[in-house]
Amino acid sequence: MLDSAVRTHKKQPLYEEVAQRICHLIEQGTLRPGERVPSIRSLSKQMQVSINTVKEAYGQLEDRQLIEARPQSGYYVRVRFPELPAEPEINPPVLHHPSEINLPDIYQRVMRDLLDPELLQLGIATPNYMLLPVEKLNRMLARETRRFARQSVAYELPPGNLRLRQQIARRLLLSGCTLSPDQIVITSGCVEAVALSLRTLCQRGDTVVIETPFYFNFLQLIEELGLKALEIPSSPRGGISLEALEYALERNAEKVSACLVISNFNNPLGSSLAETDKQRLVELLEHFKVPLIEDDIYGDLSFANDRPGVAKAFDKTGNVLLCSSFSKTLAPGYRVGWIAAGRFQDRIERGKMLAGVATASPPQQAIAEFLANGGYEYHLRSIRRSYARQVALMQDAIGRFFPEGTRVSRPQGGFILWVELPGMIDSLLLYEQAKALRIGIAPGQLFSIKGKFHHCIRLSATLWDPAVEEAIKSLGQLAQRQLELQK
Amino acid sequence: MLDSAVRTHKKQPLYEEVAQRICHLIEQGTLRPGERVPSIRSLSKQMQVSINTVKEAYGQLEDRQLIEARPQSGYYVRVRFPELPAEPEINPPVLHHPSEINLPDIYQRVMRDLLDPELLQLGIATPNYMLLPVEKLNRMLARETRRFARQSVAYELPPGNLRLRQQIARRLLLSGCTLSPDQIVITSGCVEAVALSLRTLCQRGDTVVIETPFYFNFLQLIEELGLKALEIPSSPRGGISLEALEYALERNAEKVSACLVISNFNNPLGSSLAETDKQRLVELLEHFKVPLIEDDIYGDLSFANDRPGVAKAFDKTGNVLLCSSFSKTLAPGYRVGWIAAGRFQDRIERGKMLAGVATASPPQQAIAEFLANGGYEYHLRSIRRSYARQVALMQDAIGRFFPEGTRVSRPQGGFILWVELPGMIDSLLLYEQAKALRIGIAPGQLFSIKGKFHHCIRLSATLWDPAVEEAIKSLGQLAQRQLELQK
Repeated sequence: MLDSAVRTHKKQPLYEEVAQRICHLIEQGTLRPGERVPSIRSLSKQMQVSINTVKEAYGQLEDRQLIEARPQSGYYVRVRFPELPAEPEINPPVLHHPSEINLPDIYQRVMRDLLDPELLQLGIATPNYMLLPVEKLNRMLARETRRFARQSVAYELPPGNLRLRQQIARRLLLSGCTLSPDQIVITSGCVEAVALSLRTLCQRGDTVVIETPFYFNFLQLIEELGLKALEIPSSPRGGISLEALEYALERNAEKVSACLVISNFNNPLGSSLAETDKQRLVELLEHFKVPLIEDDIYGDLSFANDRPGVAKAFDKTGNVLLCSSFSKTLAPGYRVGWIAAGRFQDRIERGKMLAGVATASPPQQAIAEFLANGGYEYHLRSIRRSYARQVALMQDAIGRFFPEGTRVSRPQGGFILWVELPGMIDSLLLYEQAKALRIGIAPGQLFSIKGKFHHCIRLSATLWDPAVEEAIKSLGQLAQRQLELQK
Repeated sequence: MLDSAVRTHKKQPLYEEVAQRICHLIEQGTLRPGERVPSIRSLSKQMQVSINTVKEAYGQLEDRQLIEARPQSGYYVRVRFPELPAEPEINPPVLHHPSEINLPDIYQRVMRDLLDPELLQLGIATPNYMLLPVEKLNRMLARETRRFARQSVAYELPPGNLRLRQQIARRLLLSGCTLSPDQIVITSGCVEAVALSLRTLCQRGDTVVIETPFYFNFLQLIEELGLKALEIPSSPRGGISLEALEYALERNAEKVSACLVISNFNNPLGSSLAETDKQRLVELLEHFKVPLIEDDIYGDLSFANDRPGVAKAFDKTGNVLLCSSFSKTLAPGYRVGWIAAGRFQDRIERGKMLAGVATASPPQQAIAEFLANGGYEYHLRSIRRSYARQVALMQDAIGRFFPEGTRVSRPQGGFILWVELPGMIDSLLLYEQAKALRIGIAPGQLFSIKGKFHHCIRLSATLWDPAVEEAIKSLGQLAQRQLELQK
């Protein structure tokens, strides 16, 4: 037996021997960041040591941050911290007054490129189609429209398909919300839910409070609606700064008609508000009588086994409008999202009716059936693992290939990375150079109303293969060259 | 042979004999309004007279307005004019200044009732599901999402599904428009197309010129957007008064940012602009630099075999935004509409993107396939005949059951009738009384911003059966009773 043999010849504890072996496999690259290490049971069998010995070894490797446990899923090789770049530090910008938005004309150009199928798209936040349950969904679409044929061609007038709303209400328990189906309105995706909310709450010239950096489509929407934006700094770990928010509201409360926050695995920072901060956010906005529009579109993509709660869970007065969709987890093209609109329910239903009468019926029927009988939770577990792994691998590659001083975010869900480049690197130039190599990235300038974050880029880790690794390497080289030319 | 026998015994021409026989069948009620009379060939055989004799007889009956020819379809019994109420006379109201809209709170109540499945719905303008090709469409939905599986779950980003836009561009030739697929944006129904247009063209406080009476959802939309409305009188035959429009534009041109018109088989009047008036409308608005939003949602439901043209056909500068959908002809629940946005194409595409990213993909795929291979024209011919017949039967029943002095519109397409009641009849009271009998109607007050048309109702002839006939009879009795109580 290895146990006694090792104990006799070497003076180190047996678990240390086991740990060293795994450590060696990681250093060699046999076990790569994000990959699963052998299960305790199988390693115990393979190395002929006791289960407890392996457990102790893994515990030690965990302490050394080489591997990490994921509940009900086993142990995984952590991204190698010594090589992983530091996290970005968003310097809280000086608080501006609310600003009218005049977004730079790079938007049109970049938007077109983000959709160019000729580019390897690392800049767009659409899910990896290989990870979507395409056949199953389309089968359910066919079956449900056959089963409820007349309903499929008829309007599902607001609030929308009842069975779907029941399923969503049931799932909302996991987010900490007890809501009934009639407190939910089905929308054409999360973007429509947010757009309806802004249109319902704000009039041209009003101010909306947002985080910075922030999802560029929402910035454009705010511009389109003629609203002013008040940007509150957000940190890559904890999300929007509540101190800065309170400071701003104390000085602007009368003019602010909504606050729009992506509460979990934020786009682009990947940050999430802690549960206590969610509660504080809700109380703060309630105090200032400013409705909260909460976007939770990435909430189901937590790398942990349980999804995080939402701010809406702390809403006692109906002041929170919670928006989400199935575009990141099931089918963006089905355009099925929803909003739990609190005390604005009637107005949102009316707004939905006037904006286009209803959401298409067949996709609602199919997604209701998928939630009821399609194994949505099982599907989520599978894609969460994939995205966790891909995010880890991309972080690792950035660490290896990008210039020293690069920083990268540490999202605990979703598939988006925020990368802060060192020196005076111009991400718009980097974007142009990358495009020449047929690589698409999202330059940081898109993510604020003043074109800030010009040294940052957003990358999507929706897939990982040698071509993506090669693209990350190329991006790193381009950034390095920019740095050298500046010397 | 009847020919010679008749010629000998009676002194009247033979064709007169044939005409009298048909006339008798109509008077007896054997041939009812809207029903097809025997074909020329079969009657010639049956009565043993020459084809030319029957032709002459039918020509005479046509002159006497007892029957009417429908191209490639034969002769039909006309609605009996002596008994049919006169057409409504919309008295051109004094032109108001543009008004902010504060719609009465009856809207919420009536909207809810319009959706109540417990009521026999004669007040809502949704098509009869029995006339929709439900199975075929759903079969195509299943097949197309299987055939283009990945595309079905992916975004169809603006301007939308290419194949669908190609099919729409091809069909637009029938409306007199030569447009390429990239001049079309797919929307979530016609309502979204109009809403996008208004949002693109108008800012809060601007004025939009509309017809009166006008589709109530558009009035609500205009209110919701904070726009002022300038109502231009519309006639039940020829649509919006171009004289009044010119007069108004000369005095308000600077403030007017759009004109919204339903050009064919208008909701609620059923009126259509003559082709020359369409051209004049386009030129007039071009002269005043006011964009025209043209809603043609009922255009495909012409009772004649050819559909009418659109104003867009006369557009030389891109000033016309033509909006339509497949909600009246194929499947309201699929939510597929479109807009040919002229020089506003880029802004509409951007607006669509920001309002909800895209229209759902599977319904676009299914409708593209239906237009290409589903026999859309054949389907249209069939439902046009049904609606023509049902409209005739409902007009006839109104003539029989409603109080003397009632007037009813003469639409040449669609399925909507506008009924003007005599005396001081209050249509809101009638609506409440009808509701107690489980009959749903749309009271006239919904169709203007000032609650005018309180003596009018809108009825939908989407179906015809003994229950509907009974409902029309009940409505007539309720109206009669109101009249008598006023004496």
